[in-house]
Amino acid sequence: VAVPEGSDFPLENLPYGVADDGHVVVAIGDHALDLAALAAVDAYDGDGDGPDVPGDVWTSGSLNAFMGLGPDAWAATRRRITGVLTGAPEPAALRPRHGLRLRLPFEVADYVDFYASQHHAANMGRILRPDSPSLPPAWRHLPIGYHGRSASIVVSGEAIPRPRGLVPGDDGVPRRIPTRRLDVEVEVGFVVGVGSTRGTTIATGAAHDHVFGAVLVNDWSARDVQAFEYVPLGPFLGKSFATSISPWVVPLAALAPYWVAGPVQDPEPARYLASPEPRSLDLHLELALNGQVVSRTNARELYWSMHQQLAHCTANGAPSRTGDLFASGAVSGADPGSFGSLMELTWGGRRPLTLPDGTTRTFLADGDTATISGWCGGGGRPRVGFGSVAGTITPAPVYERTSTPETGVEVRSYPPDQTGGE
Amino acid sequence: VAVPEGSDFPLENLPYGVADDGHVVVAIGDHALDLAALAAVDAYDGDGDGPDVPGDVWTSGSLNAFMGLGPDAWAATRRRITGVLTGAPEPAALRPRHGLRLRLPFEVADYVDFYASQHHAANMGRILRPDSPSLPPAWRHLPIGYHGRSASIVVSGEAIPRPRGLVPGDDGVPRRIPTRRLDVEVEVGFVVGVGSTRGTTIATGAAHDHVFGAVLVNDWSARDVQAFEYVPLGPFLGKSFATSISPWVVPLAALAPYWVAGPVQDPEPARYLASPEPRSLDLHLELALNGQVVSRTNARELYWSMHQQLAHCTANGAPSRTGDLFASGAVSGADPGSFGSLMELTWGGRRPLTLPDGTTRTFLADGDTATISGWCGGGGRPRVGFGSVAGTITPAPVYERTSTPETGVEVRSYPPDQTGGE
Repeated sequence: VAVPEGSDFPLENLPYGVADDGHVVVAIGDHALDLAALAAVDAYDGDGDGPDVPGDVWTSGSLNAFMGLGPDAWAATRRRITGVLTGAPEPAALRPRHGLRLRLPFEVADYVDFYASQHHAANMGRILRPDSPSLPPAWRHLPIGYHGRSASIVVSGEAIPRPRGLVPGDDGVPRRIPTRRLDVEVEVGFVVGVGSTRGTTIATGAAHDHVFGAVLVNDWSARDVQAFEYVPLGPFLGKSFATSISPWVVPLAALAPYWVAGPVQDPEPARYLASPEPRSLDLHLELALNGQVVSRTNARELYWSMHQQLAHCTANGAPSRTGDLFASGAVSGADPGSFGSLMELTWGGRRPLTLPDGTTRTFLADGDTATISGWCGGGGRPRVGFGSVAGTITPAPVYERTSTPETGVEVRSYPPDQTGGE
Repeated sequence: VAVPEGSDFPLENLPYGVADDGHVVVAIGDHALDLAALAAVDAYDGDGDGPDVPGDVWTSGSLNAFMGLGPDAWAATRRRITGVLTGAPEPAALRPRHGLRLRLPFEVADYVDFYASQHHAANMGRILRPDSPSLPPAWRHLPIGYHGRSASIVVSGEAIPRPRGLVPGDDGVPRRIPTRRLDVEVEVGFVVGVGSTRGTTIATGAAHDHVFGAVLVNDWSARDVQAFEYVPLGPFLGKSFATSISPWVVPLAALAPYWVAGPVQDPEPARYLASPEPRSLDLHLELALNGQVVSRTNARELYWSMHQQLAHCTANGAPSRTGDLFASGAVSGADPGSFGSLMELTWGGRRPLTLPDGTTRTFLADGDTATISGWCGGGGRPRVGFGSVAGTITPAPVYERTSTPETGVEVRSYPPDQTGGE
């Protein structure tokens, strides 16, 4: 199978997705290999090279069944796919990626969002809490995180309606308005394949036996809503309206060559957070607004690693499950051009960005498309790309006060010109 | 079917549970009616009295399939069960409740825990943040809440291993130790039957079309772990190790006679939080340690109602799903004998409780059993009881540093006498 120069999806990558017919597919260059069709046509399962994968895994509509089979099945499947793609003849199960519609690739069990970038956490502290130390007291001791809303995770391409929320006006009175500070967070997320039972922990050194792969994440945020609500229990409606992920899950096996030493951790973390090295993923990340790049950063900047995040999540004996998603929080570098949110790029909205097309932005406008791209390698090494995660902001919904008998959902009316005062 | 005097489960109640064989059962007095057996023996589905319920709903191992059918199916099923239990002969599908093992009654989709009791929130503020106003700035304007870990929700009776977590020592250095401040929270939780799609909202007045029923909740909390980690993203490992719920889900239909006027809300909430009245559930709650009652409170004390919690949760267009659990947060009254947590009952651990057996407690000791009971009515009105949710604290696990090939879970060794310093 020919792979165009510079493709995100060479033979070294082989990320998994789910097509709109529920079939599991693997990206290769400009094509996608349909594993369901492959299994049907060439007795894919029965070659003795590793554990068998039941055929219905490939038509189940999500990656969860496959991810739950564990590292031996993942490795065997990767070997088989590589064999099919490098052998002759070209497999009949290939279809063009152009026009292929991809679903949310897995059913999300629990979703945890961390705050793992030191530059991001310190920037947010300086912007929001200028009279306090820039990092929260516990920040260097543990990877701070919170649980997000699993139901709100959507695949790249889904529209993002501007959410409404309670925001204090100039008179101090909170009113329900469409957010005026709609932001992105450029993140990388890891997906659990093999979970752990309640009462057990996952050591940092065992993370690779549990984590199936990685995706790009855009943790959309309504900063004004979040600012009003978050004390003392953390973000809620300011985050829960939508989180977008990329449709291709890049397996850890493809990322193996790209781990690098992480930032020095000082003070030395508690023993349960001691991590194998290298622990940081050298993953280039780019944020574009309407196709114009506004930030270039790298996941290697993250202070707390994938291994440490997963170990922390389970350090109290909390169970993990197939489909758990744990995301990094916004990835920011030291340089202003490498910040992972508009909050930081515009320093709390005080320094508007001027885009190459001459328009300016503090936060997202209706109609804006935010796109995060990511890739490892390049520059002479194989490019293992994540593709992208994109979303377009649509105007805040105008609800009508009606009740549909089928769902019982009563929705309320907002005349389009009356966006305040609810 | 004879129902003993004072039973939690008279004909007016008919709560649903799931037996260990996966069958849906309904409690009646000292018995449980097996709906799977009932459907099989008397063509339960086909009487034309409301929507048919597919028979496999009753053997599906959870209430989700039934809850997702919606209010008409819930009402028709309730009529049928009432008919069977009041008719002759006594149905063959009855089994004694004694010895019946019950599963987690539903698969939890997203779990949100609120902070809806004014007395609880103010007490926590006074204890933990004595130099700040007792209520957080937004508290009277919206029901503050956060997402918890769905995977950690367990049914009454499951053991609660004492979790470990990072806690600063007297020298200020955080060490991973078994929590020393293991607490309960006496809560009521509501379960979503019919969800809502992303971009729509559920009005307060429509809550009854979406909520299937209610359970008792014990939101176990490690206060020392929580205190260190919670700024600025809220509770995480201090809560995520376990949350227990009662095995019987009391349907809203059974609770209908017990709604009462709620506390006056001042300032008047935003319009989307305006609630139909009566909005508060007159639900008596009791907390017992090792069988000795230490607190008596009532869910009618809650400032923010079920309707307001659900409306708030979806006010930004966040979707909801069958199996969503939203809990109240600890229910505390004004009187010290009506506080819903040990944190409040012992005022931050500074005033130990003396139990009737002469022992004292600040927080939970290994071996302690905490039991929350709840009921509506009594005193001449039908008693619609929730049964109870109980859990026994077991010592912090002693992990060994081993790796099991099957799961890849590496766990670490703590000599039993060396509980500090990880």
